[in-house]
Amino acid sequence: MPQKATVGFKNRDIISIHDFSKDEIQHILKVAKVYKDRPHPGLLKGTILASLFFEPSTRTRFSFESAMERLGGSVISLADAKSSSSSKGESLSDSIRIVEKYCDVIVMRHPLEGAARLAAEISKNPVINGGDGANQHPTQTFLDLFSIQETQKKLSGLHVALVGDLKYGRTTHSLAYALALFGAKLYFVAPQSLQMPDHIMRNLKKIKAKYSFHTHPDQLMSKLDIFYATRIQRERFPDPLEYEKVEGIYVITNKLLKKVKKNFRILHPLPRVNEINYEVDDTPYAYYFEQANNGLYVRQALLALIMGKAS
Amino acid sequence: MPQKATVGFKNRDIISIHDFSKDEIQHILKVAKVYKDRPHPGLLKGTILASLFFEPSTRTRFSFESAMERLGGSVISLADAKSSSSSKGESLSDSIRIVEKYCDVIVMRHPLEGAARLAAEISKNPVINGGDGANQHPTQTFLDLFSIQETQKKLSGLHVALVGDLKYGRTTHSLAYALALFGAKLYFVAPQSLQMPDHIMRNLKKIKAKYSFHTHPDQLMSKLDIFYATRIQRERFPDPLEYEKVEGIYVITNKLLKKVKKNFRILHPLPRVNEINYEVDDTPYAYYFEQANNGLYVRQALLALIMGKAS
Amino acid sequence: MPQKATVGFKNRDIISIHDFSKDEIQHILKVAKVYKDRPHPGLLKGTILASLFFEPSTRTRFSFESAMERLGGSVISLADAKSSSSSKGESLSDSIRIVEKYCDVIVMRHPLEGAARLAAEISKNPVINGGDGANQHPTQTFLDLFSIQETQKKLSGLHVALVGDLKYGRTTHSLAYALALFGAKLYFVAPQSLQMPDHIMRNLKKIKAKYSFHTHPDQLMSKLDIFYATRIQRERFPDPLEYEKVEGIYVITNKLLKKVKKNFRILHPLPRVNEINYEVDDTPYAYYFEQANNGLYVRQALLALIMGKAS
Repeated sequence: MPQKATVGFKNRDIISIHDFSKDEIQHILKVAKVYKDRPHPGLLKGTILASLFFEPSTRTRFSFESAMERLGGSVISLADAKSSSSSKGESLSDSIRIVEKYCDVIVMRHPLEGAARLAAEISKNPVINGGDGANQHPTQTFLDLFSIQETQKKLSGLHVALVGDLKYGRTTHSLAYALALFGAKLYFVAPQSLQMPDHIMRNLKKIKAKYSFHTHPDQLMSKLDIFYATRIQRERFPDPLEYEKVEGIYVITNKLLKKVKKNFRILHPLPRVNEINYEVDDTPYAYYFEQANNGLYVRQALLALIMGKAS
Repeated sequence: MPQKATVGFKNRDIISIHDFSKDEIQHILKVAKVYKDRPHPGLLKGTILASLFFEPSTRTRFSFESAMERLGGSVISLADAKSSSSSKGESLSDSIRIVEKYCDVIVMRHPLEGAARLAAEISKNPVINGGDGANQHPTQTFLDLFSIQETQKKLSGLHVALVGDLKYGRTTHSLAYALALFGAKLYFVAPQSLQMPDHIMRNLKKIKAKYSFHTHPDQLMSKLDIFYATRIQRERFPDPLEYEKVEGIYVITNKLLKKVKKNFRILHPLPRVNEINYEVDDTPYAYYFEQANNGLYVRQALLALIMGKAS
Repeated sequence: MPQKATVGFKNRDIISIHDFSKDEIQHILKVAKVYKDRPHPGLLKGTILASLFFEPSTRTRFSFESAMERLGGSVISLADAKSSSSSKGESLSDSIRIVEKYCDVIVMRHPLEGAARLAAEISKNPVINGGDGANQHPTQTFLDLFSIQETQKKLSGLHVALVGDLKYGRTTHSLAYALALFGAKLYFVAPQSLQMPDHIMRNLKKIKAKYSFHTHPDQLMSKLDIFYATRIQRERFPDPLEYEKVEGIYVITNKLLKKVKKNFRILHPLPRVNEINYEVDDTPYAYYFEQANNGLYVRQALLALIMGKAS
């Protein structure tokens, strides 16, 4: 998992967080901050984004399309695979080689791991991975990092709990890696059967990540800067009884928040189902909606950078 | 059902016709007329409409999206609920709190009554109700009123028949209310089992509406200014035999139009199935397609007003 | 099948290749070439395209929407029939009469033959046929012709093989007709049961087309300027055994290309499944992706011409 040297962003694909060095990540966040502070209408006028969702995700799709339109660009949009030529047996390579003619940049969500990398190798236009199966969703990681920096005014040396389904939750895998680059202390809080998978742990060890494993969040709360919650899906458990045992443990309530630090914030990639009690929304610790908002600025930054309109 | 005082339109939600006073309704129609007479391209440049159709309605969606684009704005569009996060169990409140970050104004159609009001309470951006179940579809009512005014050069003191399925036809409920505000004489023409529901009649009585009930339109035709037809769906009848008995009565043909006044016009919220014979399309009484066209100007007016770009 | 005199393009419908004279076809290709050589952003600013796909076709939809956006126009888009009012029993005429109010030009794909012609007769706005069942897809033919001209620097007197499923492949029907207008020698290469249908042959004879029938492409290769491949679908064969017999014959491999002329090019309307081996993509003979790209310029030309913005 080597870190590439900074090579400039123009025409670059955004496929995996592992393709970016610390410096590059910081640069992206810096540009995103500029766009958060001040709108840049017209910056990408005349530019077309092809929004290819072979698997529906309205939130991510809207975030990219809005980012493009906020910068004055246009969008062509496939919201749902069922209306695509892939249903006629066309290969992904062929689909990409055609769609790239109709646009300047592609964002793609696809149910299969590696689909985004393949698309990027085929396409002459830059490709942004909007999620490829259980693998990567790098713009989510950038917006998570941006949100952490916004709330903590720094990225280095933070105490961050990743909580919930760490086995299948792809966002926590990339985030753990990126935070480790910045020297975070990571707390992996999950039921035994949903802890961080071995292949993720191997990567974390390579970059000398600091971490510990936990099954309950309670004892950690007073140490944490960031609590990153994720959804636990009943169907992930081999035995439904096991689900019922752990269900309540990972629900954040105001009671759990009694001893937290002042700078403590809760993040969640959303959608939530019942991991965060609604009462928490009104506390100063809730940052998950602002986090979603930040996605807009991070995606504006990425679009502008790879189109060569920001530096 | 109190009428709010005029409070200005900027940032206002458009949820129910009951939220608008006579003066406000007239103001909206006046602005719509300005946009019908003269295009205003560029007025909403840089503004993004989120078009959220949790239930498909191409006509209404296109009308709003076209209105926004005619004024120079952009659109992000969810045409169909199946591609939304609500299918992952997300609450409507959470969906709205995220989508509002990506846009400046939301139009929402939802199968559940009250959904638009809930969305408006959650959202910091103005919300326009594009239809919430059997409840309200206020922009339809505005365009109906605009169309009546266009054809009659006034709104007060008209003779208006509301015809067809008055029990389930939400458009007739709101329109009856609004017309009553303007002193119309209302003729409710429907099979007994599909007449105006009690809760609508109670509201009409409160505002001293003038009305009468009918099962056949024939005897009324020479008195009417407006014939507002709606679809009668076979499946609304408890007994299919009952449907067959009344089916023909509510079909408008040229024969029915022999004794109408010169200013008489037929309106229909569309889509029609067989309520209006195609031969009627070529008479001067047919106004239903122009009525659909008027939706564009009314929606432009509403978008401009709530964005603070018209006064 | 009379050829209309040139009548100018403003407000004209694009329904069938048979509606266009040789001169008109050449004019369209000339304008397309201008747009290929130089972008024309802003040319259709303020213009709205309604993209009505009653049957999904992402490629064609994207090509039209991108063409419109490249010229600065906007789009309202129905990607999929299931979200349309036609599912409520509305007639196509009514749908068109409403949608035309919301746009300046309509592109429509529909599963039924003749649907585009009907829409054009109803609509006051120009209608472009994006494919009506097995009937016509004229913009595909224009882009095929444009691609042939781009590769051969002329359209007249070429040797063109149309290969694959000539019975059900609508693109080959229109292309054969158009090429015959330009004096091509046509080679119809197909299994006996999938050869050109009688009604197409009758039309070709009327315009004195030059053609011959073949079951194998091998012996032709050295004579050809253009090899136009199409998909053969297993389900088109009455007997699956028959499919297996012919399957390999119509697959293009590098071996088949050994004796071709220097100017020889392969076209395909795409999507391909296995008619063209991937190894062929890297030869100078592969032109099918550039062909798809050309669709963009041809559609820009058509949009500009019928909007009266090109001459």
